[in-house]
Amino acid sequence: MIIKIVIFSQSITFGVFELQNLVERVLEGNRRAIAQAISLVENQPDKCAEFIGSIFHATGKAFIVGITGPPGSGKSTLINNLVIEFRKHDKKVGVIAVDPTSPFSGGALLGDRIRMDDVQTDSNVFIRSMGSRGSLGGLSRATMDAVRVLDAAGYDIILIETVGAGQSEVEIVRTAHCCCVLGIPGTGDAVQAIKAGIMEIADIYVVNKADRPGAQEIVNELKLLLSIDPLVKEEGQWKIPVISTSNIDQTGIIELVETILNFYEYLENSVDFAHEREFIRRKNEILEIIKVEFFENILENLVNKQKWEEILNEVILKKRDPYSAAKSIMDPFFR
Amino acid sequence: MIIKIVIFSQSITFGVFELQNLVERVLEGNRRAIAQAISLVENQPDKCAEFIGSIFHATGKAFIVGITGPPGSGKSTLINNLVIEFRKHDKKVGVIAVDPTSPFSGGALLGDRIRMDDVQTDSNVFIRSMGSRGSLGGLSRATMDAVRVLDAAGYDIILIETVGAGQSEVEIVRTAHCCCVLGIPGTGDAVQAIKAGIMEIADIYVVNKADRPGAQEIVNELKLLLSIDPLVKEEGQWKIPVISTSNIDQTGIIELVETILNFYEYLENSVDFAHEREFIRRKNEILEIIKVEFFENILENLVNKQKWEEILNEVILKKRDPYSAAKSIMDPFFR
Repeated sequence: MIIKIVIFSQSITFGVFELQNLVERVLEGNRRAIAQAISLVENQPDKCAEFIGSIFHATGKAFIVGITGPPGSGKSTLINNLVIEFRKHDKKVGVIAVDPTSPFSGGALLGDRIRMDDVQTDSNVFIRSMGSRGSLGGLSRATMDAVRVLDAAGYDIILIETVGAGQSEVEIVRTAHCCCVLGIPGTGDAVQAIKAGIMEIADIYVVNKADRPGAQEIVNELKLLLSIDPLVKEEGQWKIPVISTSNIDQTGIIELVETILNFYEYLENSVDFAHEREFIRRKNEILEIIKVEFFENILENLVNKQKWEEILNEVILKKRDPYSAAKSIMDPFFR
Repeated sequence: MIIKIVIFSQSITFGVFELQNLVERVLEGNRRAIAQAISLVENQPDKCAEFIGSIFHATGKAFIVGITGPPGSGKSTLINNLVIEFRKHDKKVGVIAVDPTSPFSGGALLGDRIRMDDVQTDSNVFIRSMGSRGSLGGLSRATMDAVRVLDAAGYDIILIETVGAGQSEVEIVRTAHCCCVLGIPGTGDAVQAIKAGIMEIADIYVVNKADRPGAQEIVNELKLLLSIDPLVKEEGQWKIPVISTSNIDQTGIIELVETILNFYEYLENSVDFAHEREFIRRKNEILEIIKVEFFENILENLVNKQKWEEILNEVILKKRDPYSAAKSIMDPFFR
């Protein structure tokens, strides 16, 4: 039975005709086609370039918002509330969850699976989790492309949920136009986030579960910290706001949505800043594609086989450690 | 208060003298020094090269075993049992957990925190989880270096626990001498693992929770599948065994430990195979260091600023999609 499945899984490929058909249906906003297209960018990296090339002209209209925070900080429930609020602004909303512990991904281990019936049956809302299992290589690349599918399909706001945990998550958040970093009272998240450099990527800081004790203190601490931020110098520059939210009494949800939309306006009006960001974002994306698809090939081409063998043998014989080996391979490029 | 902590966290650095002192104590097997050294490789990538360079001569004695499987497949409990069994063989055992949901990492969300008192108070056992939060950049690099610290400190067997989920986990497992892939009955893990290419990295396949219904079927399916593996051709080549284990009645634990030790012996006797593996492993590691530390610099050096700007502007203006942009940046290197 397994053998059959293996053969089967290899045969789900798209021919030229089907691919063109898929492109058309995605552009029409067909939900089934969107789901298929996201599966394609997730599981068939070889078809991805062609497919993305075909829908690329239709992208660039959505506003992409990253929501990142540690496990248990209430991201999914907050996102659910944000979706409801964005719908009141008549926005079509897409959600891409890249958090393996997210209830969106079926990872409701804590039994706190939230009720998303109200938003999931709304045809103007599309929620999808990126399966981290099976996506060998390029999760942030796949996520960016899934966002692009929703963008091309006409979604206005696309929320990306990531667990603020590691490099790939930070890379994912960097692909967003606006990054909301979540913390909760009493866990030292803020301190952790600062240590991890996660604060550096925040456009909006959210203290979630603000009904808990200590919320006001953390808000004050963050505000103090942000007020001495050496990066904020110029008049008219965006000052990172700290917003308290609670999923229990809906505190701050309206304010957060308004702040996100304010940031959108800020970007629209700050052409240079927005362009610089877009520049960095695109560059990171291209670097990511190169890293996943070409990196090893580049080195194979630039460093000859003999040099590799020489250095590797030195490492294996313990004449050289891997760091100095890496340095010696790289040295010629930095002269 | 936060500000103080920030300053504090920056001031925990190692001077030349302290670093040398740390090296000496690690080589003596001092547990506190080992813990400090792992924190260093995890949080101070800038000191890492120097530190690893200083202990590198003492490494290469440990046998490194990767244990990977999906969340909930019972990896931590199995590892606990393996540690107890390896202790009976009088091996010093280190465990590095890279699974954020692992009970070793304090992530016992399901309330199934296992009792590890018996192994954790044993001075010949060292268990450490790699904090995924805060390790921006190079988790697999940091893991490899943590393993190296334990290796230099005289641990015989080092188990690396990863949740078989994504690329970085696969990269981590690739750094091991022996890779055990776990699956459990009734979840389609085997099929998933095959689809994800995870089977390709297995040296030993473990069907855990073998007390569950359907265990024998999955063992049979896997054996059938492995018997037609086109990679296994030569006489005397390692044939991937499928071992059933259960944490309830300790089924298969002894067999699994023996199989791991058999694989160790197999590698000892298959000089070419072992050398080839070591070659690939070291190369991957060096590539990883280059990827984390030099990658962007290489491209900055090889591709001039004007070319970057040109291409990025084309992408921003939607004249070109990111894939074709990546390709056009790479093209000159493949001529």
